[in-house]
Amino acid sequence: MRVAYQGERGAFSESAARRLLGETETIPFASFEEMFAAVRDGKAECCVAPIENSLAGSIHRNYDLLLESGLAIHGETNLRIVHNLLGTRGASVAALRRVYSHPVALAQCGRFFRANPHLEPVPLHDTASAVRIVMERGNADEAAIASDRAGEIYGAATLAASIEDHAQNFTRFFLVGPSSATLAVDGRRWKTSLLLRVANKPGALFRALGAFALREIDLAKIESRPIEGRPWEYGFYLDVVGRAGEEPVAGAIANLRQMSELVQVLGTYPTRW
Amino acid sequence: MRVAYQGERGAFSESAARRLLGETETIPFASFEEMFAAVRDGKAECCVAPIENSLAGSIHRNYDLLLESGLAIHGETNLRIVHNLLGTRGASVAALRRVYSHPVALAQCGRFFRANPHLEPVPLHDTASAVRIVMERGNADEAAIASDRAGEIYGAATLAASIEDHAQNFTRFFLVGPSSATLAVDGRRWKTSLLLRVANKPGALFRALGAFALREIDLAKIESRPIEGRPWEYGFYLDVVGRAGEEPVAGAIANLRQMSELVQVLGTYPTRW
Repeated sequence: MRVAYQGERGAFSESAARRLLGETETIPFASFEEMFAAVRDGKAECCVAPIENSLAGSIHRNYDLLLESGLAIHGETNLRIVHNLLGTRGASVAALRRVYSHPVALAQCGRFFRANPHLEPVPLHDTASAVRIVMERGNADEAAIASDRAGEIYGAATLAASIEDHAQNFTRFFLVGPSSATLAVDGRRWKTSLLLRVANKPGALFRALGAFALREIDLAKIESRPIEGRPWEYGFYLDVVGRAGEEPVAGAIANLRQMSELVQVLGTYPTRW
Repeated sequence: MRVAYQGERGAFSESAARRLLGETETIPFASFEEMFAAVRDGKAECCVAPIENSLAGSIHRNYDLLLESGLAIHGETNLRIVHNLLGTRGASVAALRRVYSHPVALAQCGRFFRANPHLEPVPLHDTASAVRIVMERGNADEAAIASDRAGEIYGAATLAASIEDHAQNFTRFFLVGPSSATLAVDGRRWKTSLLLRVANKPGALFRALGAFALREIDLAKIESRPIEGRPWEYGFYLDVVGRAGEEPVAGAIANLRQMSELVQVLGTYPTRW
């Protein structure tokens, strides 16, 4: 199984791929666009897409790419984002000058930088390449912020562990592949993700949610999103607990279709912890 | 009126401040944390916080800072994000080598970089500082991606206009200040933003939304968000159309309080276009 991901060796997405599928071949791509194209063109059987972060929010661009690609969600996992300060062996925080990482990672370690005002945060494209660059140069006054796995891959020493401001920092990843594919993801809790568009009338969403509430189906996510080119109209992302092909979710979706402009099933899949 | 914002002169946040309040004193801060602290400590009367982007999603961190600060929303505006390629006078795209900007801006100009593979995208902390640095150095093979306003401030030439992939790229900003403040924001359409927490039972959100649906109140946004340390429980951000102190919204909120664990009004405010 070849799994496409965005980033370099040691990226959080690569860890998510292993969590979902065990030891497997992972292929890095520079952008989310190229990663989805690789699955469409058969260069990979599936890809791993970050879809939301507990601090930074939903990554709408990946919802868009999922919709454009015609691919389906086959699994999900939540990865705790732990940021470590990684550098050359023998380096110390006191002797450092520059710290490289993705700007989101730098921002998520604000407390560490305030406690160490002698350090200059320097932004780079991703966390894993920051470690690679620091280790290639081998300067004792430079370090990177990245995952412990990236540190292992590039042979870096951990100069400070878990320097992120918030322990509740999770990123949710979707495993995405052709709808016809069978991807062996373990997990007992199933979810179904839907895109819903209802008439632009007060109460339309309320009635649509009734299809789930009246069947006692648990809602795991709801998010409105403006529709391009149609001001004041909204689409909704819904995640409900249960499998699309089984009751009570199957009946709820059939009911929903009767009262909505659009109901699109993005996937029905197990959660892997 | 002193308005705090995150970034440098020419940042999109500064343009949002002017859209909301006209010509006014704007004070830059390096981080969102420092910006909120400035309002709390009286160094500024209010601040402008980006809260969601049509492609990148909600900025949960700013919702958190808003809640922690005890401040209220006093206005909102939506700014179209237009990315321009800015450089020294006489520079040309063909002769460029490096293009600096915030990584989100670089990613939002993917088509431009694919069409110009000789250009190396280089990430920096923010779009406005990218222009400043390029203009300070004055090299004809370097350019920045930023707003036209940043280009004006630093005297840069526009080498290519509107190079963003998606025209529907909007960022929504909140004007935030003490609840007791009176900030003169123009606008005829009022909204009320709420944080809602309901019991962890199927149908609880459905019943809560009934408080609005049965009064024909329009919902402008809904977004679920996991609650820290309480797995499988969710809070909801709701924006409804109307003023909190007037009917029918006042009655809906009173009704909502009877059936929810928590209802917090984050602000009631006009929208400025």
